[in-house]
Amino acid sequence: MSSPAHESDMRREIEEIPGVVEHLLADGASETTAIAAAIRARDPRWISIVARGTSDHAGIYARYLLETHLRLPVSLAAPAVTTVYGVGPDWKDALVIAVSQSGQSPDVVGVAEAARNDGAMTIAVTNDRTSPLAKATDFVLPCDAGVEHSVAATKTYVAQLAALASLVARLAPESELAGAIRALPDGIASCLDAAEAWVDRGGSDPTRPTAVFAGADRALVASRGYNLATALEVALKLKETSRIFAEGYSTADLLHGPVILSAVDVPALVFRPDGPMGLSIDTAVERLRETGSDPWIVGGAELGRGGTYPSTKTADPERHLSLPLALPEALTPLAFVLPGQLLAEAVARRRGYAPDAPEGLAKVTRTL
Amino acid sequence: MSSPAHESDMRREIEEIPGVVEHLLADGASETTAIAAAIRARDPRWISIVARGTSDHAGIYARYLLETHLRLPVSLAAPAVTTVYGVGPDWKDALVIAVSQSGQSPDVVGVAEAARNDGAMTIAVTNDRTSPLAKATDFVLPCDAGVEHSVAATKTYVAQLAALASLVARLAPESELAGAIRALPDGIASCLDAAEAWVDRGGSDPTRPTAVFAGADRALVASRGYNLATALEVALKLKETSRIFAEGYSTADLLHGPVILSAVDVPALVFRPDGPMGLSIDTAVERLRETGSDPWIVGGAELGRGGTYPSTKTADPERHLSLPLALPEALTPLAFVLPGQLLAEAVARRRGYAPDAPEGLAKVTRTL
Repeated sequence: MSSPAHESDMRREIEEIPGVVEHLLADGASETTAIAAAIRARDPRWISIVARGTSDHAGIYARYLLETHLRLPVSLAAPAVTTVYGVGPDWKDALVIAVSQSGQSPDVVGVAEAARNDGAMTIAVTNDRTSPLAKATDFVLPCDAGVEHSVAATKTYVAQLAALASLVARLAPESELAGAIRALPDGIASCLDAAEAWVDRGGSDPTRPTAVFAGADRALVASRGYNLATALEVALKLKETSRIFAEGYSTADLLHGPVILSAVDVPALVFRPDGPMGLSIDTAVERLRETGSDPWIVGGAELGRGGTYPSTKTADPERHLSLPLALPEALTPLAFVLPGQLLAEAVARRRGYAPDAPEGLAKVTRTL
Repeated sequence: MSSPAHESDMRREIEEIPGVVEHLLADGASETTAIAAAIRARDPRWISIVARGTSDHAGIYARYLLETHLRLPVSLAAPAVTTVYGVGPDWKDALVIAVSQSGQSPDVVGVAEAARNDGAMTIAVTNDRTSPLAKATDFVLPCDAGVEHSVAATKTYVAQLAALASLVARLAPESELAGAIRALPDGIASCLDAAEAWVDRGGSDPTRPTAVFAGADRALVASRGYNLATALEVALKLKETSRIFAEGYSTADLLHGPVILSAVDVPALVFRPDGPMGLSIDTAVERLRETGSDPWIVGGAELGRGGTYPSTKTADPERHLSLPLALPEALTPLAFVLPGQLLAEAVARRRGYAPDAPEGLAKVTRTL
């Protein structure tokens, strides 16, 4: 798949993603099953997710997974309540899921420690089983993605999503999720091929997405529900690798004000799953079009057919990437993010930045 | 306070804020006390806050208030779980606080209705007691701010903060909050005067904040803890009224990637309370300075003294607005937002936009 012209670590690590997910689902199975059994035995009353940056987006994905499949309240933690104000909720009946690629950030570790001391069950979702976070928690959920060289996290992000989906599939064995998860590695591999073709096609063609985003200082990235995580993560990648002011939004929040930023010279990228959520997202696409914007849309089969998707009737079909998906919406974030990651990498190179090592950013960030 | 040169509804409504808060604390007292008693009797196990846009920022403020003062888990709701996916958490033991200036948005109303049907206790924080949201909930928390003519919400936002602080003060009567809340109207009035002087001073002086932000297409607005709400809200005001890509961040999240967007031509505005949180925020200010940026800082007495604030030693003191505050950090968001609101109004006029009626935005937004 890789072509020598693209030899960045970031691109290579994106191309490793199908293999990483396959490995994780196979080799991590028994550990994940054991953690699911421990959660069931503990019977938590609520779930707190603690994370920062890219890992926070994996946490936002997990939040939708957990609320829809377990019907437990989920809170995305505000670490400062614990680490700066020194108080925080009563953790006794909580399941705390701390997500951190490096497992190093003191605020994430601090919340996990406080919660564990207070009687919570704690799980680390980290790529480093020897990290402070792994040591501070009761369990480490397998997401061994291998060493990630690029500062911009890609394969570790999708590994976090896969690890969390795999855990929830075990906690909700009757769900559509549990049946579909086996199809993930093949599904992701097909989507990767389609996404690479979409990003690479046309090279320096000024009408293609790489050139359009490379020529912009501002961009909007939007979706809703499970793929809110995708929008936020792709916006962050565009910031980190390409220094574009790319704002990630829920399409609902976008309509409550920020849509005013949409304009012809502000490219928009929308992630649109099939089904009812897709129809909800279409209303935001229509609003974006009213501002003169013609959003780039990544979606599933409905996008290709155009049938239930009125917007395709007026839009340039070249703007759409219909991914070959046979996955329920809950698993689409693992595929939808790929064209976004690839786009950020290609845009960075075109803007003259090294995608692997953005100036001023470190692989590990420590906040208190 | 008002000068004829600034006669927008937005400016006038900002100037009404001290009076609105005074009225709310006095006339709403008995109703608020009754709601607090009902919450105590119900003894909820967790709290869900449902909101969009500006009201979501009031919800984020309430989240810090509730977690630090009541030690209950707080979840900022993802309405789509209920209104699009049709599931959602078990609401039985929840207190649901739905915040909406207009009380109209179907997704906010939908979550409140679903929660109430499921057995939750529900409270509306709305400026319209006849709205669908008010009808869908058990209680309406008084925040009668009067009709707001400007599309950009200002006085209704501070009224929401005051109403929520007033409620939490009654639920935590031993806290510093409960004692300090009486000083709010006078405290806000002094801060308004100082903020107006800061924003108006220098007129078209190209080194003053109005000219600097008016000349930028991108900006960063940051704080942490209670004032994360302030940063997000001021960023949204700069977007809505002035079409600036102003990104609001927690200073901790900023360091996990987006700090790379900071540059000499990207003005930054930081809200810095006194105390331990201020020291945490200082580390982000130092990082911003390393990129060549010289952030504008709104803060309390420490900022004026410079004593515990090393950054003041190297920075231009004209960049700082030290507000005459005698309030605990938990109440500073009601004062810190004022210079931000005034700045957004002044920047809009300077950029040639009508601050009261941004093209393409309506006062009421309805999302499903």
